[in-house]
Amino acid sequence: MVTICVDAMGGDEEPKVVLDGIAAALAADADLSVLVAGNEEVVMPFAADHERARALVTTEVIGMGEHPADAVRQKKDSSIVRGCAAVRAGEAQGFFSAGSTGAIFAAATLGIGRIRGVKRPAVANPMPGASGRSTVFLDMGANADVRPEMIVQFAQMGRAFAKTTLGVEDPKVALLSNGTEDTKGSEAVVAEHEALAAAGAGWFVGNCEGTDILAGKFDVIVTDGFTGNVALKTLEGTAKFLLSQIRDAAHSSKKAGLGALMMKPSLKGVAKQLSGDAYGGAVLLGCKAPVLIGHGATSVEAVKNGTLATAHAVREDLVGRVAEELGA
Amino acid sequence: MVTICVDAMGGDEEPKVVLDGIAAALAADADLSVLVAGNEEVVMPFAADHERARALVTTEVIGMGEHPADAVRQKKDSSIVRGCAAVRAGEAQGFFSAGSTGAIFAAATLGIGRIRGVKRPAVANPMPGASGRSTVFLDMGANADVRPEMIVQFAQMGRAFAKTTLGVEDPKVALLSNGTEDTKGSEAVVAEHEALAAAGAGWFVGNCEGTDILAGKFDVIVTDGFTGNVALKTLEGTAKFLLSQIRDAAHSSKKAGLGALMMKPSLKGVAKQLSGDAYGGAVLLGCKAPVLIGHGATSVEAVKNGTLATAHAVREDLVGRVAEELGA
Repeated sequence: MVTICVDAMGGDEEPKVVLDGIAAALAADADLSVLVAGNEEVVMPFAADHERARALVTTEVIGMGEHPADAVRQKKDSSIVRGCAAVRAGEAQGFFSAGSTGAIFAAATLGIGRIRGVKRPAVANPMPGASGRSTVFLDMGANADVRPEMIVQFAQMGRAFAKTTLGVEDPKVALLSNGTEDTKGSEAVVAEHEALAAAGAGWFVGNCEGTDILAGKFDVIVTDGFTGNVALKTLEGTAKFLLSQIRDAAHSSKKAGLGALMMKPSLKGVAKQLSGDAYGGAVLLGCKAPVLIGHGATSVEAVKNGTLATAHAVREDLVGRVAEELGA
Repeated sequence: MVTICVDAMGGDEEPKVVLDGIAAALAADADLSVLVAGNEEVVMPFAADHERARALVTTEVIGMGEHPADAVRQKKDSSIVRGCAAVRAGEAQGFFSAGSTGAIFAAATLGIGRIRGVKRPAVANPMPGASGRSTVFLDMGANADVRPEMIVQFAQMGRAFAKTTLGVEDPKVALLSNGTEDTKGSEAVVAEHEALAAAGAGWFVGNCEGTDILAGKFDVIVTDGFTGNVALKTLEGTAKFLLSQIRDAAHSSKKAGLGALMMKPSLKGVAKQLSGDAYGGAVLLGCKAPVLIGHGATSVEAVKNGTLATAHAVREDLVGRVAEELGA
């Protein structure tokens, strides 16, 4: 039996969405039990109703807009801080929340602690790719300024995640740059390239470009947290823009409108591909337990998949694989 | 009469596509004449057939994959190098090419020369936005490492372009970062923010995120050439991925296929919006004449619009407006 702590208060949706997601995960996985963290009136009735659910009653909630480090310091009885503490104490083996990425990053780094030798944890996003091949994209975390040796660790942690989650035996890693040639990039990126070339003989395959993030060409694409954030947000903005344009186009003529109606189920599938719901969230790599971070605009299916994916990461020993990959 | 030099050898397509685009521009603008740079067999017959076209016979072509600075140094008789020289000599008032961005950047900086006081020219892309408002996005050029005072100049040049091209009276500028708060960003971006806040009282509105590039929220979004390249390539990759997914979805059922067929004209319009064909290209800001750079995968319409937009930039005195904005 694997126990996952799930934050019932995370995300922009009502706690009911999260609870329904947890219930769906429990129904799908008979070897799963859940520690549900949140306000008493939310978690107690749920625990009473579900055999494999226990309640972790907390009194505070960290909002999506709060300053992460300040919120984690001040709200000691929040579902995020207490959830991470419960993992540290061994009451659960992994943590899932659809709350603020920054707050989860801070709470997990402090509360669960880093794997020995990890300089900075990183946040990885599994991206869908043309041809069905997925790409692990990192860092999406708070690491806006990195040193070359941190990028090397991000690459190694990304490889461990690609092994456990995508089932790739020997994942190949590319460095995001503004051109594929070895000499392309800012001074910092050129230095990162050199460090990767030295450390990653056998798995570092060189520079790639923004067009490659969704192309399914590499198992892992690594970058600093600043560039990673800009790229992911640009991707989200582009998808939003295109889907809104398609909606507008559907209103441009009767024929187009009817066509859109007939395509609707398929278009929804496309939007879902990019939403991250299929996997359930981003993964925080480098802590002593698997931590998954769902999209704030979450759904029942996203919570279900995120909870199951956290349990899967525990069973596949993601933490052990990261430690091994880091050559610890 | 405005004369624009057009590179007949630029881009991945046959020269015929460029020539047809020039012919369409000449037909659309009776006050336009064109100096067509390229191989003799390409440009001579065209000049003979068109009253307001003259030939600039060159013998070399810079390929899309060549090292920009090396190619410009070595291929002195290429259409790009000779075209820029013709502009410097006063034979034309602006230059348009669908060739290699890096080569055009290098040839124009050396061959046409910078406006007094400009530290580094920058490449700006006019982006379509939700709600119809466009955003000037820069830098997309060779400036992977920038100093804060360069970002301030990019912002000022972007403002000049937004004034002449988008017709905005007092363009507002945002800085691309990994969050909207003033303190967000890498150390470099935080320093850029401070420089913009000091220089841009009245028009600098703070940080923005990747989701804003296509949101039509700001007149100008400024960033370094590394981040700008990653964002633009991510945008292209996302659009490509989504459109391919929609194509796949159309094949998933008969109904979806029929729906896609009915939506096809509208979907083409959506793809066009993002292709840059509507404006004709990116603009190189900071040189002593307007230089426009078309997408390598060009089209008759893109060349037509790019040539007309270059003439428009000459008539609107883009160069004078840039100089004025820089407080020269």
